[in-house]
Amino acid sequence: MKARVYVTLKPSVFDPQGKTITDALQSIGYAGVEDVRQGKYFELELATTTPEATRSMAADIADKLLANPVIESYRVEVV
Amino acid sequence: MKARVYVTLKPSVFDPQGKTITDALQSIGYAGVEDVRQGKYFELELATTTPEATRSMAADIADKLLANPVIESYRVEVV
Repeated sequence: MKARVYVTLKPSVFDPQGKTITDALQSIGYAGVEDVRQGKYFELELATTTPEATRSMAADIADKLLANPVIESYRVEVV
Repeated sequence: MKARVYVTLKPSVFDPQGKTITDALQSIGYAGVEDVRQGKYFELELATTTPEATRSMAADIADKLLANPVIESYRVEVV
């Protein structure tokens, strides 16, 4: 089954990449852009058969390899 | 309003980063991982007032700056 994992910096962590994108957008005329935060997105194709098993395996993988729990948080979505 | 933009490589484009993650996961014991594709994820805070305006501005920004339309596709979600 397929799972999607979204990894984002925790709100308290400064995001210089997002800040650069915000500045770039404002400089090319998008004055309405107030803030941008960049994260990572993963599509996992897993050999699991139930949504529960898929979610638990994806969360396990996110914890161990995809996200750094000190500064990042993640969200898992089973499709 | 807030918009989320998900940028992924088109299915026909090879994703070496995803392949590396797949291999890494299999080597640490996750044999059930068949495929991983990595993408980018953006949270935009826009000074718009309607969902339609938010979606159209986010799509415009994704087209111009966040995604490379030659090899990537994107999806916009208004929250």
